[in-house]
Amino acid sequence: MVNYNKLIEELKNLKGNLYQKDFLLTWEKSKEELKAVLLVAEALKYLRDNNISTKCFDSGLAISNFRDNSTRTRFSFASACNMLGLEVQDLDESKSQVAHGETVRETANMISFLTDIIGIRDDMFLGEGNKYMREVGDALDDGYKNNVLPQRPGIVNLQCDIDHPTQSMADLLHLKKYFGSLDHLKGKKIAMTWAYSPSYGKPLSVPQGIIGLMTRFGMDVSLAYPEGYDLIPDVLQVASKNAQENGGRFKVVNSMEEAFKDADIVYPKSWAPYAVMQRRTDLLKNSDKEGLKLLEQECLANNARFKNWECTEEMMKLTNQGNALYMHCLPADISGISCNEGEVSAKVFEKYRIETYKEAGYKPYIIAAMMLTNRFENPVKLLKKLNKKNTKRVKN
Amino acid sequence: MVNYNKLIEELKNLKGNLYQKDFLLTWEKSKEELKAVLLVAEALKYLRDNNISTKCFDSGLAISNFRDNSTRTRFSFASACNMLGLEVQDLDESKSQVAHGETVRETANMISFLTDIIGIRDDMFLGEGNKYMREVGDALDDGYKNNVLPQRPGIVNLQCDIDHPTQSMADLLHLKKYFGSLDHLKGKKIAMTWAYSPSYGKPLSVPQGIIGLMTRFGMDVSLAYPEGYDLIPDVLQVASKNAQENGGRFKVVNSMEEAFKDADIVYPKSWAPYAVMQRRTDLLKNSDKEGLKLLEQECLANNARFKNWECTEEMMKLTNQGNALYMHCLPADISGISCNEGEVSAKVFEKYRIETYKEAGYKPYIIAAMMLTNRFENPVKLLKKLNKKNTKRVKN
Amino acid sequence: MVNYNKLIEELKNLKGNLYQKDFLLTWEKSKEELKAVLLVAEALKYLRDNNISTKCFDSGLAISNFRDNSTRTRFSFASACNMLGLEVQDLDESKSQVAHGETVRETANMISFLTDIIGIRDDMFLGEGNKYMREVGDALDDGYKNNVLPQRPGIVNLQCDIDHPTQSMADLLHLKKYFGSLDHLKGKKIAMTWAYSPSYGKPLSVPQGIIGLMTRFGMDVSLAYPEGYDLIPDVLQVASKNAQENGGRFKVVNSMEEAFKDADIVYPKSWAPYAVMQRRTDLLKNSDKEGLKLLEQECLANNARFKNWECTEEMMKLTNQGNALYMHCLPADISGISCNEGEVSAKVFEKYRIETYKEAGYKPYIIAAMMLTNRFENPVKLLKKLNKKNTKRVKN
Repeated sequence: MVNYNKLIEELKNLKGNLYQKDFLLTWEKSKEELKAVLLVAEALKYLRDNNISTKCFDSGLAISNFRDNSTRTRFSFASACNMLGLEVQDLDESKSQVAHGETVRETANMISFLTDIIGIRDDMFLGEGNKYMREVGDALDDGYKNNVLPQRPGIVNLQCDIDHPTQSMADLLHLKKYFGSLDHLKGKKIAMTWAYSPSYGKPLSVPQGIIGLMTRFGMDVSLAYPEGYDLIPDVLQVASKNAQENGGRFKVVNSMEEAFKDADIVYPKSWAPYAVMQRRTDLLKNSDKEGLKLLEQECLANNARFKNWECTEEMMKLTNQGNALYMHCLPADISGISCNEGEVSAKVFEKYRIETYKEAGYKPYIIAAMMLTNRFENPVKLLKKLNKKNTKRVKN
Repeated sequence: MVNYNKLIEELKNLKGNLYQKDFLLTWEKSKEELKAVLLVAEALKYLRDNNISTKCFDSGLAISNFRDNSTRTRFSFASACNMLGLEVQDLDESKSQVAHGETVRETANMISFLTDIIGIRDDMFLGEGNKYMREVGDALDDGYKNNVLPQRPGIVNLQCDIDHPTQSMADLLHLKKYFGSLDHLKGKKIAMTWAYSPSYGKPLSVPQGIIGLMTRFGMDVSLAYPEGYDLIPDVLQVASKNAQENGGRFKVVNSMEEAFKDADIVYPKSWAPYAVMQRRTDLLKNSDKEGLKLLEQECLANNARFKNWECTEEMMKLTNQGNALYMHCLPADISGISCNEGEVSAKVFEKYRIETYKEAGYKPYIIAAMMLTNRFENPVKLLKKLNKKNTKRVKN
Repeated sequence: MVNYNKLIEELKNLKGNLYQKDFLLTWEKSKEELKAVLLVAEALKYLRDNNISTKCFDSGLAISNFRDNSTRTRFSFASACNMLGLEVQDLDESKSQVAHGETVRETANMISFLTDIIGIRDDMFLGEGNKYMREVGDALDDGYKNNVLPQRPGIVNLQCDIDHPTQSMADLLHLKKYFGSLDHLKGKKIAMTWAYSPSYGKPLSVPQGIIGLMTRFGMDVSLAYPEGYDLIPDVLQVASKNAQENGGRFKVVNSMEEAFKDADIVYPKSWAPYAVMQRRTDLLKNSDKEGLKLLEQECLANNARFKNWECTEEMMKLTNQGNALYMHCLPADISGISCNEGEVSAKVFEKYRIETYKEAGYKPYIIAAMMLTNRFENPVKLLKKLNKKNTKRVKN
């Protein structure tokens, strides 16, 4: 049972300033700020679970800008907005005039006159997604400074080419709850490993987000992938530095077995090699369909050499007491279920299925916490007020 | 003029338990439960008409999952949700990753963390729509049992292959208001008849819903269609049993004239034969475009043999005093208006046009009533509270 | 700083009746009614800017029916609805059964059972858009009169073939704020001129809206275009009559230079000739793709003869003290930015960019004011109440 007052006390003691700062990369935030986001998420969940209204906006818009398909992030964002009292308005670029030559600068302002939050997902083009979010941010700064916008909407990164902060923070909250506290995570070994999938071109943001975040909390992070399946080099440096500064470890290995050895947590997930994503980005920009087809063939053939990178029961036996927590951002490629051969065996997945659902269940609260801390200077005061006011969500 | 207190008194005396039960088929509900839904719908309409807020949720999501195009059901659902204070989030399978190999079980949980209601329309594939709804329901039960979901969202069937309960219940409410009471419906003859249409493949759920529901209330139900245009046999058995148990009659005839004879109500509407829908389902599953084209040709040719199955003024003269109430779920195929030759003549339709609009107008309230009774254990208490609180919807 | 009480006092002294009247053309409204819309928009902006809730609906739907792509109008409408407490439900004709032979009359009623406002954008077909809005209005009148609808939803024209009242009224409010008052606009020269664009088929509604509205307020309106680029003749007569009756001037010239000469405001914007739009409408109706292609070629070739119709720094020097206010409904075709050669040079646009953003920023408030005055008989009373109640929008 969550102790609400204790949560609020903890939150009160944290330093940092999330107010009116975009949430684009976890490693741009201080550790105390990350802890604050977790606590606010927990507080919101407590209120919701106890049928207490979490509405802190009487009205206002939150814009979603999904530049790639999405189910769970779309619903998580919608849930988070509804929880706080904001209405989602989708910027659907196929229905808008964005394609008609508008600049980002102009569009960002045009949609923001009465907007509090903009959530952006843009993860297909390497070197583009995060950059686009910053361009939107600059445009909003410009509009706010010039009195075009009465407020400067906050931006939440719903997945980019570099990081997937709402996923990694939800994962962290899941670990916090599963192991009891952030302190309990110190020294725990997490294996963030590549796994075989019959599809190609999966984004790098999840593994990058995990190694960039978990190294902040003193964990022993092993990144494993077959030779050639590199992530963005800069992010590896971030992870190394984080580990050094936070009493953790960060190691890259080319063996799934080595990573799984004595692991407390495993996160087997497919991704495309960094170099492939760069080639793919160039081909996509040039709309080179023939080139894309050839690249896909080449990559699938290459992937097929690593079908043994599968999270099986055998593999799980290597982990700490054979009992590591299996994690996944979902949907997983489950062998014999969603594909013939995939990232994880049906038995392993089924054993941890409910845990992966719970993992996903934190995302709406994490997003809501990122939005709330962006818009409210004093979350402690607000959360106390909501609890005290005790407006019933369901008026039974 | 509706007497609100009388409505509430009646509701109080009804037994049954709609709380946290999905609404999938009218014949799974007791008669008292069906009466309760009608009364709650009437109470909500009274409040709305008197500018009293019907909001009973401070926040919360309602998901719409339309697997077929829809105008009126989409707007009815949106209206119902807005009335109660829920925000609609559309599960648009083209924009989501559902097609990427997710299982129903997983998706159902992923969209439900903060969801109160899921409305599903899935009427194209015989043997599939209702089954899909139950699969979603099972997945939600599983998620709720395993503490993935803090609540078990309720499911409302917005039309499936078997039944169209929001339509048939709206039709029943229309009849209750038109004839004065449910008691007045006893012994009234309703002709649910096939009618010619220049299109093919119309679902069976409306005629099946009508014969399955109206036989519960002591009506004399005549189902009429040209030989071969059978409905699902199981549903016919349901209708027969209902008639026996409720002092009504159920008869199948192969003559529109015979059905219209002395009818108090006529409901002429096209549908595809059960056997055709089965063949069509197989062809659709196999994406057999050539086969679908051939089937359409065959069916249209067959339909064309029954162009005399049209609701004309001549035909209406056969009814009780020539004055039967004409019903339709809309849009109707109106001869000379929306097609050359269709289900109903322009004159008959125009005479009853406003009545068909009123019939449709009950649907938002019926849907809202199904949702409310699913989420609130004590609707009587809630409805009393809303009326007493008297919050103005339009704050003038 | 806006003086709220003064605004309300001014509003109180205005005559007119906007209550339950559709807003389809500015020239169907009295001058006092137009002034009232401006004042209500200013009052709503004041409340919003001061974090005071502008919600005057507890629940209710507003339907958007966009028959052409749109970003800013879509977001403006969504913002306006959210501000007042209405939820937007999009009538997406591709997802509905509208295409299946439904009449406008029926659909208009089917979507309106619990609807307060319908916003329509339909600007592609000459002779169609405004007519369609009136057909919807007639259908709603019919439904309301026959007790199908418990209220008669109001219609707001979000752009048609004839007028673009939410744009021209936002423009007028921008001018009022920029020059200090409506009185200060008397005698000011505005040059509404055609400008070169590398695309063709841009609607006529903006220039028509501007000449139809600005002539009401004693302005000296010069309409300039290359020979052949005529607007709808009826609207020119409206503008002439308005100028005569309101102590203004209205002149048509075939020289951008002449129009810019001593102008206080310039509004250079491309449009297609009236005659071309008529031919285009016929071709579109007949789905004559070949014909459309040929027409486009012919028009682009013709446009290319007038590349010198560009708003350059040289051109701006002709204006009053070289200092005219540049206006545009956005997005503009900016030479060297969004196209090679366009309506305006990059330097001129950049100088006035922020002003064009501010111009656009009034649109949500104008739309909200049109909706509010349509639904509330006594806006003065309502606006006083909102200010006095002082519910915080952001509950910090």
